[in-house]
Amino acid sequence: MKTAIFKGKGNVVVEERPKPVIKAQTDAVVRVVLACVCGSDLWFYRGIANHPEGPVGHEFIGVVEEVGAQVKAVKKGDFVIAPFAYSDGTCANCKAGFQTACVHGGFFGQGTEGDGGQAEFVRVPYADGTLFTVPSTNVSDGTLASLLTLTDVMGTGYHAAVSAAVKAGDTVAVVGDGAVGLSGVLSAKMLGAERIIVLGSKHEDRHKLAREWGATTTIDVRGDATVKAVMDATDGIGVDAVLECVGSDEANKTAFAIARPGAIVGRVGLPHDVHIDALGTFYRNIGMRGGPAPVRAYMQKLLDAVVRGTINPGKVFDLRTDLDHIAEAYAAMDERRAIKSLVKVSEI
Amino acid sequence: MKTAIFKGKGNVVVEERPKPVIKAQTDAVVRVVLACVCGSDLWFYRGIANHPEGPVGHEFIGVVEEVGAQVKAVKKGDFVIAPFAYSDGTCANCKAGFQTACVHGGFFGQGTEGDGGQAEFVRVPYADGTLFTVPSTNVSDGTLASLLTLTDVMGTGYHAAVSAAVKAGDTVAVVGDGAVGLSGVLSAKMLGAERIIVLGSKHEDRHKLAREWGATTTIDVRGDATVKAVMDATDGIGVDAVLECVGSDEANKTAFAIARPGAIVGRVGLPHDVHIDALGTFYRNIGMRGGPAPVRAYMQKLLDAVVRGTINPGKVFDLRTDLDHIAEAYAAMDERRAIKSLVKVSEI
Repeated sequence: MKTAIFKGKGNVVVEERPKPVIKAQTDAVVRVVLACVCGSDLWFYRGIANHPEGPVGHEFIGVVEEVGAQVKAVKKGDFVIAPFAYSDGTCANCKAGFQTACVHGGFFGQGTEGDGGQAEFVRVPYADGTLFTVPSTNVSDGTLASLLTLTDVMGTGYHAAVSAAVKAGDTVAVVGDGAVGLSGVLSAKMLGAERIIVLGSKHEDRHKLAREWGATTTIDVRGDATVKAVMDATDGIGVDAVLECVGSDEANKTAFAIARPGAIVGRVGLPHDVHIDALGTFYRNIGMRGGPAPVRAYMQKLLDAVVRGTINPGKVFDLRTDLDHIAEAYAAMDERRAIKSLVKVSEI
Repeated sequence: MKTAIFKGKGNVVVEERPKPVIKAQTDAVVRVVLACVCGSDLWFYRGIANHPEGPVGHEFIGVVEEVGAQVKAVKKGDFVIAPFAYSDGTCANCKAGFQTACVHGGFFGQGTEGDGGQAEFVRVPYADGTLFTVPSTNVSDGTLASLLTLTDVMGTGYHAAVSAAVKAGDTVAVVGDGAVGLSGVLSAKMLGAERIIVLGSKHEDRHKLAREWGATTTIDVRGDATVKAVMDATDGIGVDAVLECVGSDEANKTAFAIARPGAIVGRVGLPHDVHIDALGTFYRNIGMRGGPAPVRAYMQKLLDAVVRGTINPGKVFDLRTDLDHIAEAYAAMDERRAIKSLVKVSEI
């Protein structure tokens, strides 16, 4: 089969590798229909984070090709969404809705043969706990793209909003206007936010989508000027909830600085050299929650919203290509020519 | 009037100073009935935190002696509880229930003449927003002591439990078995915790009160052994909620280590050189909330519980003295001979 292989900084190629097979009787093998490139893939692509040479990609939807003898919840031919993390679905953490902390869990696309989502086939451990079956395959390309976002980006934005305890009527700030930040805007709107302030870049296309999804203000300055702008917009008090969708120290500092006393910073940006001010946050009663999003826990709710047409998170994809052109999918995001790249692998 | 004066490390004396007067028309002057010594007072008493020489003490209940022309909610003769922080009661932060972040607020006992609670009289700024009137003065000494705890320690323990989002059926860990930690046990029980694990010292009197108030397990080891003991007690998963009632780096490390994925550490111990692991907490989806407790927000609920007899937080006082013997009140707590010292100043 064809699979995307990370070869080192700035170098992702397509190679032929053996099609994965069932190893444990709780496994499934999924034929990938759509995959995509994650903002977090850029960390290794840019040489900032370590990643072994090998298969990559952790976002995919597809059709079940084969299941192990112990798999009960999905069967050959089912159309499924795979969260970016696999999980047994039965441990205490899964039952509590934190499947990314599953005691038997792990992440796709870590460099092991057959575990990359940017490929024709993927071996899925703990298929019963991991895969989510979509009832109908009779959906538009737009809906398919939206279902693809439930594997990670939309569920991650939603986790930021849930973690930040966004509630009806809130003034919410979203730090970051990448695909996750934009999904955060959509999520904050779903949870009833009245004002949504997006702190991001100067990319007008991102601002446009942010406004379409519910942003009321977009701020493209940085550092202290950003904090001042948000404070000016909130009578000097700060916002009711903050979604931190970047992961840099600067983004986190801004996030904590603009939170009003009692507010929570919902973190979904993987922290890179982040320092949290234990005393400053304490004096102001600022909270933080979040981490790797348990997107599996949000799938039913978000699927329902996609099917009803309430949300259309697939609009975050502004570049579409196929597996043979995966290198361009990475390059366009790296060069900020694309918000997020969709990779078509096969027909349903 | 007599007032306790901090003179430097290990030295608190009683001196005569002018009785405070109304300065702003929103002030009240309160005649103190009961005061006490806070665990946080030990920080300056021990020379660990800076404090100017001057009046100290921020926990007191008493009778209104005089009010400014603009004071509406309390009048001369009212029996009142004063939170450790004064607040206007009208700003956005007060309205949101975070009175310790009041835009006009501040703390008692900061060394300014007339602002110390360990004294015969105190000037109370923003009396309408700050003071809480107790309907009846016909109460026992035990109830009076319990009402005194609403000024800080009980409200602070309750804030830890609320911040940690303790809910019915939870397994809760309380880090620290000082007066705040014990109040945290009582608070966790109020919120429905099923199992309460107290991590503290080897003081049997503290363990006894903890068990009386709902603790199901007391652990008196430290560091990694503590973490292991809690993990062993929770099938390796961790607890549903953690109340951090100490403030040291070690206590915080333990608190974050024993929290299960998705749990929140409710912090009320003032952080001293605390390092929060931004990445480790992220990977495990551990949250934190808390800070200086907005005890004013909890006063009605806790008063009701005291009056009904549901809680008896005044039992935390195991030393009783008077203002003339304030030095002993400090020394006994410093030497851990007392959990918390009550100081009788005048009759109701």
